[in-house]
Amino acid sequence: MIKLLIDCFGGDHCPEAPVAGAVAALAKNPELHLLLTGDEALIRAELAGKSYDASRLEIVHAPEVIGGDEKPTDAIRLKRNSSMMKAIIMLRDCDDIAGMVSTGSTGALVTGALVRLGRIPGVIRPAFCPLLPTMTGGIVGICDSGANPEVTSAHLRQFAIMASLYLENVYGIASPRTALLNVGLEAEKGDDLRRETYALLKETPSVNFVGNMESRDLLSGSYDLVVADGFSGNVLVKTTEGTAVELLKKLKKDIYSRNLYKFGALLMKRMFMEEKEFMNYQNYGGSVLLGTQKVVVKGHGSSRAVAVEKCIEQAYRMETSRLSAKIESEIAKYEHYED
Amino acid sequence: MIKLLIDCFGGDHCPEAPVAGAVAALAKNPELHLLLTGDEALIRAELAGKSYDASRLEIVHAPEVIGGDEKPTDAIRLKRNSSMMKAIIMLRDCDDIAGMVSTGSTGALVTGALVRLGRIPGVIRPAFCPLLPTMTGGIVGICDSGANPEVTSAHLRQFAIMASLYLENVYGIASPRTALLNVGLEAEKGDDLRRETYALLKETPSVNFVGNMESRDLLSGSYDLVVADGFSGNVLVKTTEGTAVELLKKLKKDIYSRNLYKFGALLMKRMFMEEKEFMNYQNYGGSVLLGTQKVVVKGHGSSRAVAVEKCIEQAYRMETSRLSAKIESEIAKYEHYED
Repeated sequence: MIKLLIDCFGGDHCPEAPVAGAVAALAKNPELHLLLTGDEALIRAELAGKSYDASRLEIVHAPEVIGGDEKPTDAIRLKRNSSMMKAIIMLRDCDDIAGMVSTGSTGALVTGALVRLGRIPGVIRPAFCPLLPTMTGGIVGICDSGANPEVTSAHLRQFAIMASLYLENVYGIASPRTALLNVGLEAEKGDDLRRETYALLKETPSVNFVGNMESRDLLSGSYDLVVADGFSGNVLVKTTEGTAVELLKKLKKDIYSRNLYKFGALLMKRMFMEEKEFMNYQNYGGSVLLGTQKVVVKGHGSSRAVAVEKCIEQAYRMETSRLSAKIESEIAKYEHYED
Repeated sequence: MIKLLIDCFGGDHCPEAPVAGAVAALAKNPELHLLLTGDEALIRAELAGKSYDASRLEIVHAPEVIGGDEKPTDAIRLKRNSSMMKAIIMLRDCDDIAGMVSTGSTGALVTGALVRLGRIPGVIRPAFCPLLPTMTGGIVGICDSGANPEVTSAHLRQFAIMASLYLENVYGIASPRTALLNVGLEAEKGDDLRRETYALLKETPSVNFVGNMESRDLLSGSYDLVVADGFSGNVLVKTTEGTAVELLKKLKKDIYSRNLYKFGALLMKRMFMEEKEFMNYQNYGGSVLLGTQKVVVKGHGSSRAVAVEKCIEQAYRMETSRLSAKIESEIAKYEHYED
C-alpha cells in the first residue's frame, strides 16, 4: 500500500478537483491509500454521494488555507493548520507516508518542502520538473522551472541527473536526450554559467548530454529534457503555455468573426478539440519537485479533477520506482559542494 | 537625405533579399540614399533588370562573408573585408552615414558594433529591442533580447529608458506601459536582481513602470515593453516564435490528415492565411540595437525582401526622430556607473 497526502485547498477548483481526483485515483489503483488535508466539513460535503473505498481514504482536518499572494516564509511559519502545511508536516513525521500532491501556492510549497522536508543525501537543491507535449507525440521535461532563480553549474548538473532518472523511471524514456537551455547551439554561447555547465555535462556519464538547445526548439521532439536555471526555465515553460493559449484564443475569436469560418470550423470540430486537448496541460500531470526525500508533486493552480488524478499517479510511480534511492546513488558518483 | 548602409551578405536569402528590400525602400522614400556592402559582381547581378534611382544607390565592394558559426571576436578582427565589418567601419568613419541594416551573424554584429561604434554618452550597454505582435492588434517590445546575458539593475533601467523612447518616437506609443520580466507579479518575486530593478524602476519617472510581468502574458496586449536580461529575454522571444511556428505546423499537418478537415480548411483559407501573416515576424521589422551612437538594425537571418525593407524603414525613422539625442538627454537625468 502506498500512502499519499492530498492537499485539498489553495488551488482554483478546491476542494472539488482534489477530492474528485482522489476518488478517481482510488478507484483505479487498489494499492493506493489517500489522506485528504483541509476543512473536514467541506471535504465531507464534497465526498457526499461519491462511491469510494472508505478504508483507503482518511481526512486530516486543517481548516486554514494559504493564499496565492501570501509570503511563503510567513505562510509556513504562521499557518501550521493550513491544508498544505499540515500535509508537509505529516509527510515529514510519518514514516509510512510516501508523498504529497498540492495545487496550492508554489512559493509556499517550495519553501515548506525545503525547510520542513529533508533533501536526498547529496542533493544540493531540489528543483521542479514539469512536462510539456512535443510535436512528435512525446513529452519534454524542463528542470528547473522555478524553484531556484539563481544556480551554479553544480546545481544544473544535479538537475540533469535527477530529471534524467525521473524520465527514465517514471516515463520509461531510456537515456533521455538532455540539453542545456542557451541562447545558441555552440559550446561557447551564453554567459559563464552556461559555458561552465556545458563543460561539466560533457563529462557526466549519468547524463545523455546532447548540447545546447535554443528555446525555439523546445517542442520539436528532438529533446527529452532541458536543463535550466529556475528563472529562464520558468520563462520557457510559461511562455510556451501562454503563447499556445493566446493563439488558440485568437483562432476561436477569428472563427466566430464570419459564418463561413464557423461552418468550416464545424467540419473540423473534432480536430480543434484534439488540438485543445493536446495543448491542455491538465493531461500532462504536475510539476514534480525532485531532490526532496519524500515525493512532492505540484499541480497547476487551475487543475481540474483529471489533472489531480494524474499528479497522484505521478507520485505513486515516483514512489514505486524507488526514484529517491536511485537519485541518491547516482548523485553520490560525483563530487559536490554544499552551498 | 538619410544615408544608410545595407549589409547584403550573411543572411539566409542573400544577396537577393537585402538587394530587393533596398530597391523597394528607395522607391518608397525619396529621402533615402543606400550603400550596399558585399561582393560587387553578385550585387550588380542581383540589381540587373531592377528599376531604381541609381543616384541614390552605391555599392561598396566587400568580398568576404561572416558565417553564422564564426567566433565574433575573430570575425571582427580577421574579416575587415566582409560585408558586415566594412559596413560597421564605414558607419564609424563617415559622418554623413546615419546607420546600417544587417541580416548576418548576431554575435558578430553586436561585438562589432560595441567595439567599433561608440555608445551614446551615458549609456552603459547597448541592448536589442525586437517587437512581437499582441492579441489586441498592437506590438510589444522586448529589451534586451540577447546582447547582454549578464546585467545589473542599472543596465535594466537604461534598457527601459531607451526602449520607451524608441517605442514612443518610432511607433508613436505614448508613455509605453513597461513591465519587468519576472517569475511572478509581486514586488518581492524573483532573485535579488529583479527585486533591485523593481525598486529602481519604481523611482524612474522617465519610465511608465507598471510592475512585473509573467512570461505567459507577453502577447496579452497589456504591455508595450518588457525589460529583461539578455538571456531570459532571448528565451522569451524565441519561445514565443518557436511555439507559434510549431503550432501552425501541427495544425497544417492535422488538416492534411483527413479530407473533411481539408475541405473545412478550404473554407477558412483566408483566415488561416491571415493567422500565418499575423505570426510572421517578417512583418514586424528587425531587432534594433539601442544605445550605439549610430543606428544599427538587425534583421532575422531568414529575412525576405519585405522584412529587410521594414528594417530600412525602422532605421530611417530612428534617425529622423533623432532618437540618439533623446536617449542621451534622458539617460543624463540619472546617476549611472560605468562598468
